[in-house]
Amino acid sequence: MIFSSDNWAGAHPSIAESLVRHARGFASAYGTSDLDKAVDATFSRIFERDVAVFFVGTGTAANSLAMAACYRPGGVAFCHSDAHMIVDECGAPEFLAGGIRLCPVAGALGKIGPDALSAAIGRYSARVVHSGQPMAVSITQATEVGTVYSLDEIEAVAGVSHAHGLPLHMDGARFANALVALETTPAEMTWKRGVDLVSFGGTKNGCWCAEALVVLDPGKAAEIPFLRKRSAHLFSKSRFIAAQFEAYFADDLWLATARHANAMTKRLADVLASSNRVRLAWTPDANEAFAVMPRALMEELNAQGARFYPWAKPASYDEPVADDETVCRFVTSFATRDEDIDGFRKLLMSK
Amino acid sequence: MIFSSDNWAGAHPSIAESLVRHARGFASAYGTSDLDKAVDATFSRIFERDVAVFFVGTGTAANSLAMAACYRPGGVAFCHSDAHMIVDECGAPEFLAGGIRLCPVAGALGKIGPDALSAAIGRYSARVVHSGQPMAVSITQATEVGTVYSLDEIEAVAGVSHAHGLPLHMDGARFANALVALETTPAEMTWKRGVDLVSFGGTKNGCWCAEALVVLDPGKAAEIPFLRKRSAHLFSKSRFIAAQFEAYFADDLWLATARHANAMTKRLADVLASSNRVRLAWTPDANEAFAVMPRALMEELNAQGARFYPWAKPASYDEPVADDETVCRFVTSFATRDEDIDGFRKLLMSK
Amino acid sequence: MIFSSDNWAGAHPSIAESLVRHARGFASAYGTSDLDKAVDATFSRIFERDVAVFFVGTGTAANSLAMAACYRPGGVAFCHSDAHMIVDECGAPEFLAGGIRLCPVAGALGKIGPDALSAAIGRYSARVVHSGQPMAVSITQATEVGTVYSLDEIEAVAGVSHAHGLPLHMDGARFANALVALETTPAEMTWKRGVDLVSFGGTKNGCWCAEALVVLDPGKAAEIPFLRKRSAHLFSKSRFIAAQFEAYFADDLWLATARHANAMTKRLADVLASSNRVRLAWTPDANEAFAVMPRALMEELNAQGARFYPWAKPASYDEPVADDETVCRFVTSFATRDEDIDGFRKLLMSK
Amino acid sequence: MIFSSDNWAGAHPSIAESLVRHARGFASAYGTSDLDKAVDATFSRIFERDVAVFFVGTGTAANSLAMAACYRPGGVAFCHSDAHMIVDECGAPEFLAGGIRLCPVAGALGKIGPDALSAAIGRYSARVVHSGQPMAVSITQATEVGTVYSLDEIEAVAGVSHAHGLPLHMDGARFANALVALETTPAEMTWKRGVDLVSFGGTKNGCWCAEALVVLDPGKAAEIPFLRKRSAHLFSKSRFIAAQFEAYFADDLWLATARHANAMTKRLADVLASSNRVRLAWTPDANEAFAVMPRALMEELNAQGARFYPWAKPASYDEPVADDETVCRFVTSFATRDEDIDGFRKLLMSK
Repeated sequence: MIFSSDNWAGAHPSIAESLVRHARGFASAYGTSDLDKAVDATFSRIFERDVAVFFVGTGTAANSLAMAACYRPGGVAFCHSDAHMIVDECGAPEFLAGGIRLCPVAGALGKIGPDALSAAIGRYSARVVHSGQPMAVSITQATEVGTVYSLDEIEAVAGVSHAHGLPLHMDGARFANALVALETTPAEMTWKRGVDLVSFGGTKNGCWCAEALVVLDPGKAAEIPFLRKRSAHLFSKSRFIAAQFEAYFADDLWLATARHANAMTKRLADVLASSNRVRLAWTPDANEAFAVMPRALMEELNAQGARFYPWAKPASYDEPVADDETVCRFVTSFATRDEDIDGFRKLLMSK
Repeated sequence: MIFSSDNWAGAHPSIAESLVRHARGFASAYGTSDLDKAVDATFSRIFERDVAVFFVGTGTAANSLAMAACYRPGGVAFCHSDAHMIVDECGAPEFLAGGIRLCPVAGALGKIGPDALSAAIGRYSARVVHSGQPMAVSITQATEVGTVYSLDEIEAVAGVSHAHGLPLHMDGARFANALVALETTPAEMTWKRGVDLVSFGGTKNGCWCAEALVVLDPGKAAEIPFLRKRSAHLFSKSRFIAAQFEAYFADDLWLATARHANAMTKRLADVLASSNRVRLAWTPDANEAFAVMPRALMEELNAQGARFYPWAKPASYDEPVADDETVCRFVTSFATRDEDIDGFRKLLMSK
Repeated sequence: MIFSSDNWAGAHPSIAESLVRHARGFASAYGTSDLDKAVDATFSRIFERDVAVFFVGTGTAANSLAMAACYRPGGVAFCHSDAHMIVDECGAPEFLAGGIRLCPVAGALGKIGPDALSAAIGRYSARVVHSGQPMAVSITQATEVGTVYSLDEIEAVAGVSHAHGLPLHMDGARFANALVALETTPAEMTWKRGVDLVSFGGTKNGCWCAEALVVLDPGKAAEIPFLRKRSAHLFSKSRFIAAQFEAYFADDLWLATARHANAMTKRLADVLASSNRVRLAWTPDANEAFAVMPRALMEELNAQGARFYPWAKPASYDEPVADDETVCRFVTSFATRDEDIDGFRKLLMSK
Repeated sequence: MIFSSDNWAGAHPSIAESLVRHARGFASAYGTSDLDKAVDATFSRIFERDVAVFFVGTGTAANSLAMAACYRPGGVAFCHSDAHMIVDECGAPEFLAGGIRLCPVAGALGKIGPDALSAAIGRYSARVVHSGQPMAVSITQATEVGTVYSLDEIEAVAGVSHAHGLPLHMDGARFANALVALETTPAEMTWKRGVDLVSFGGTKNGCWCAEALVVLDPGKAAEIPFLRKRSAHLFSKSRFIAAQFEAYFADDLWLATARHANAMTKRLADVLASSNRVRLAWTPDANEAFAVMPRALMEELNAQGARFYPWAKPASYDEPVADDETVCRFVTSFATRDEDIDGFRKLLMSK
């Protein structure tokens, strides 16, 4: 009954097997192997256009490279105040992009709205050097609170970004979970709605370390090989990241694992909602559920083997949370089993 | 007949298998799992003292973190003019350490000598702000040209470093190859001779991405978790790096693979020396051989399946190299087979 | 009738004269001249303890050096959400300190309160690498909205800072104005109340470019000469900054100019308060007054020679401001004359 | 008899007077005043084309901004191995440009030759990410050893730079001294011969702190205001730098002071050459003379009031220097008087 995070899971058997299969033999290094190139081509196929793909080992690296790719001196990037980039990456995006600033934008349910974004950008004047200059906008899909931007919501944010000349980045650490939640295509969820760069995450969805920065207009990617190398994120045996993605995409494994994770969260949400000691905080769209419960209940559940974390109450969450209560986060993944949910229901109902 | 680089090899079967074994189940993330801790303890056992260990995915990351750990404003680190850090890392150590400078020090056979080091450091005065301030010394073991510092040579460099108050870093991308060449222990090759930090490489010796920054005095490692995270080098599923190292150290696999690689280079050197069209440039100590041959011969061999690279003639190499000749580098690894050497001998003798 | 900013003023005649006096002859460069040393000693006398003093040319440089002196990897510094550092310095403190983050803290009247500071710091856990680590607290004295921390308020903020092991920086771009407002001493306003570093500004109070980073415990200043030089802020003819400070401190000129500036603001505030079309936004403590007036009135006044800026309404300002109104800022300086105020009164009364 | 450096001089009386004249009154800040704009226009007139001008307070700041303006990730800038940027600026150009590297290029008499430059750039391949990528070339005019590039020499270096797509920067800390040595025009010495950016120095030639980065194609300067501000080099009372330049250019004062300084060095060189205990190291072109003399003699002269520095023997200086000898540097300036030279001659002849 591990609901701590999707990165507590291991690797999907097909992906582990792909690693073994490619362990043999020799191949040229630093992303130049046939396998690397084949997976690059797969990305272009999946996104329905030529894209530039840069493998890295962590989602923070992908996000930071994206910011570095958008770098301007005195640059300010706008992201949700709960974004992983601003809350959980120890300043890596600011540091690796060369000393820029992330400007938090508030919004309900983990999403930036176009009006709030307009207002935030509007505080900067292109003619005034003192405040710095806007350089990018970043959204998280699925969001940090388990919700998903609709295609129209993405398009609205992109519209504001582009009106100010700013590229739009999508932190897709849970890209697949959002994709299957929307029942749409990668093309539709990104460039057809105005997204310019994607941190494409595989790790949380069954890989052990497979992330990629995807630049949807390859003409804008010329400097990124240097940005990646000078931040020490170019792997010599890069083909093992490619090997993970090969299995990830084969037979749409990635969509299946994401659908499974989302379904598990849906079941879990039903369980949580059925308890009279717990309130679902909001409706989950992807593979994370948030609930409010007495702190004492959380501790009991934890002690009895149900692992999940208390979570800081989002600023935008208006509902009352009593002093002896806490918000809790539950995350499911490809590795979550029906019996984990069943076990949790029994445990919760026993309280 | 792939002698291009030891990073063209794949992963050793035992290491691939360990990845599969640990693919199942759940474990806490970001280096806190039981497996991470067990491997940390193994490092301390191998080094015969408590050490602080930081897993990363690339050797460049380990080197850059080492420099960041030694950072001083206006800092200058001294390394051999052929060092990987200064030649092949796209400025990552300078960038990730916060804008420092690497100062090249010349020396025969890829090694820094104490006199050259003294002279280089001596150009900086502690009282003069203009030139910047020395902050660290770095040596590469085995060196970029396949030689190995003797224990006394390490101690001599450490003596000069410490006399100037500078920590000594060892880039051990080929640590194991040097270790078995010297038939010594990790403790002896490092802290007992004055080394303070080690970039401990597993990738070139049979892992697919397993590198660690080892800080021999854990009391000096307090800030490194933050340095690693803010450069995006903390893996969520860190335990898969640990899993590689687990297999790497089990039954001294790492020593066996390094011995094999070194032995293959010794055989290859004999082959090269036996040709009257080729001259061994210098005697290899570890798993790299360098030879001088006509450029035309190199191209013929390459075309017929013997893969190896031409190499820039080291500044310290005094022997004549004719205009139609080139220095070539041959690298062997755990994956090099006897038949690769035999095949190469036959091919070379046919010329 | 220039109330745009105190940096629209020129240089006080005594300071200009000191520059001329020291223009003759020769002196050793880069801060080593007799005059530099004499002014260093004056700072120690004024602060009633040995201090380390670093001259720079801009307040942004002093603030940025202060942050660099407090640097930790993944570091987060806390300052008021209206602080000059976060609003008006184009990311210089983050960039020059090596890629750190400024965390805004809300508070009424431009001041950080101890509770808000505690809460902001409390969001960071020393054990959790993801969020980064607190590294410093900065307050602005006088604040950006023309108010002044009382000595007890400073002490309260320092108490919270030090309880978390964080040094306390004071942005004293208007140090003198605050000092005379409190009728206290530099020692009392700084180290006796827990301040560790001061950006000591002279420019706004009659110098043309004389700022200093004052480190109250010189034992903590060892690396700052390198931080200053590597950010290109060490002047060769440093003695001309010293020459400005020499005149600034002679016969307590700096206190006289600050008293004059504050008195002019007090008169100006009375004028503003006396108009029935204008409301004083809050009571000014130093040399800046803020008032709410119809935008049309502002434009008329501007057009007729009264120069002052509209100002973004501070987040903490609760009073209503109508859609056709704006907050305006008025700043006085050593150079403001009685006739400026008189002229403004006449003009305003004519409306 | 101060020959230590031209930055030991004070400020020229006309320049000091201009500062006083502009000390009165009010003017808009941060480079927007009428005076700032008038001096900007003067620069364009002097350079015979529209140029973009950025005032800063130190030559290191101008050089660092120039490098920042040329920034590319993993960037490498080429400069002479004796260049001020690489020897005397504490890593500021590397740091302020965002973590780039300076690559030293050897050359006789302080100058980079086109062949050495070609060879240095040639070591980098545009397709290979590991080594980093060339981003700029910088020459120093007059050089650090008091020589001056001829116009043809500049053109030859520019040819190599541009053939590799690299902008050419000129560190003109002693721009005026070189200009009058060549009896040419700023346009001829820069853009007509292929220079793209100039660090235009006034400080060493009679100002107290007046430096400017001049971008000869203003279309390439769009980001520099932000680069300057985020490194804290934008002065609020910027007009005082403008005031220095106003006087500097008025009636060609700058050419007169440079001619005087050069003439003083010529006289000094004659004095040095006339002593049988001293050898002129090479013929000075501008306002610095270098000579070899017994260390004991240097110390005697120093003790008797003739101030000058021993100097590290340049790597390219082939002549023998005995163990008890040293190279010495003598610098003259606008402030050097005939009696300084006469006094030195008498003192030297008495030895």
